[in-house]
Amino acid sequence: MKRTRMSGAACPVARSLDAIGDWWSLLIIRDALDGMRRFGEFQKSLGVAKGILTTRLRNLVALGILELAPASDGSAYQEYLLTEKGRALFPVVVSLRQWGEQYLYAPGEAHSLLVDNEGERPVERLELRSSDGRVLGWTDTTVRKLPSSSPKRRSQM
Amino acid sequence: MKRTRMSGAACPVARSLDAIGDWWSLLIIRDALDGMRRFGEFQKSLGVAKGILTTRLRNLVALGILELAPASDGSAYQEYLLTEKGRALFPVVVSLRQWGEQYLYAPGEAHSLLVDNEGERPVERLELRSSDGRVLGWTDTTVRKLPSSSPKRRSQM
Repeated sequence: MKRTRMSGAACPVARSLDAIGDWWSLLIIRDALDGMRRFGEFQKSLGVAKGILTTRLRNLVALGILELAPASDGSAYQEYLLTEKGRALFPVVVSLRQWGEQYLYAPGEAHSLLVDNEGERPVERLELRSSDGRVLGWTDTTVRKLPSSSPKRRSQM
Repeated sequence: MKRTRMSGAACPVARSLDAIGDWWSLLIIRDALDGMRRFGEFQKSLGVAKGILTTRLRNLVALGILELAPASDGSAYQEYLLTEKGRALFPVVVSLRQWGEQYLYAPGEAHSLLVDNEGERPVERLELRSSDGRVLGWTDTTVRKLPSSSPKRRSQM
């Protein structure tokens, strides 16, 4: 499939998808957030060919989402650790989880659960809020495009 | 690329990615959340070949994320409207946006902004909370896998 590069896009959604909008990459990030660190762990979890996994891991390291480190147990293995940039993908993975939970399972069909470590209770749904604390739905917000005449305008966020 | 189907996965993240983990599909959903409804609008926004767009739109309709409706202006065009299931992808798109805003732009580099319609101010970051209201980071939560011996266990969420 022909793919347009959008790494230079003015829309952050497009730019994010250019970086991580790949099915395997997001599953690797999910597994890393679940505590996996080693090539063999990812391979077992994903059931993916070694070549594909190697390419995706290398790409995630190049993007600064994962970093290589010596094995924590002193063995010869290398481990893939999430960087701060990688850990910041937590809400992306949670949002995908919550949508799937709500719409992709039949009533009564089982799925894994994300629970709060302290209370062992399922987490609440992600909420978007205004700067004064109101919960915002999709009709409560607007994407303010950049004026094309001012490419040097500073980001406000 | 060989693709393992994960539409039957017990992990909602995998199941969501199986449905919408396609770069074009998420960009179409982004545009629909921004108010676009017509084939020509999506095509202009995405700069995508007609064949690819046709396939992706048909798939999103089949998944119940978009639905076809007569044009709102009475013309012969058909429009693609987000269903409730489609509108519920708002947090997914917002989470991708916020990650991109934080990590994929150089200091001072311009990007579009998501603002609250009422106050015209940028929205806050998405937050995950426990059932008693604490803000949760990635180390505060655990994925509780399903016991493989109880496939009939009812979902708790």
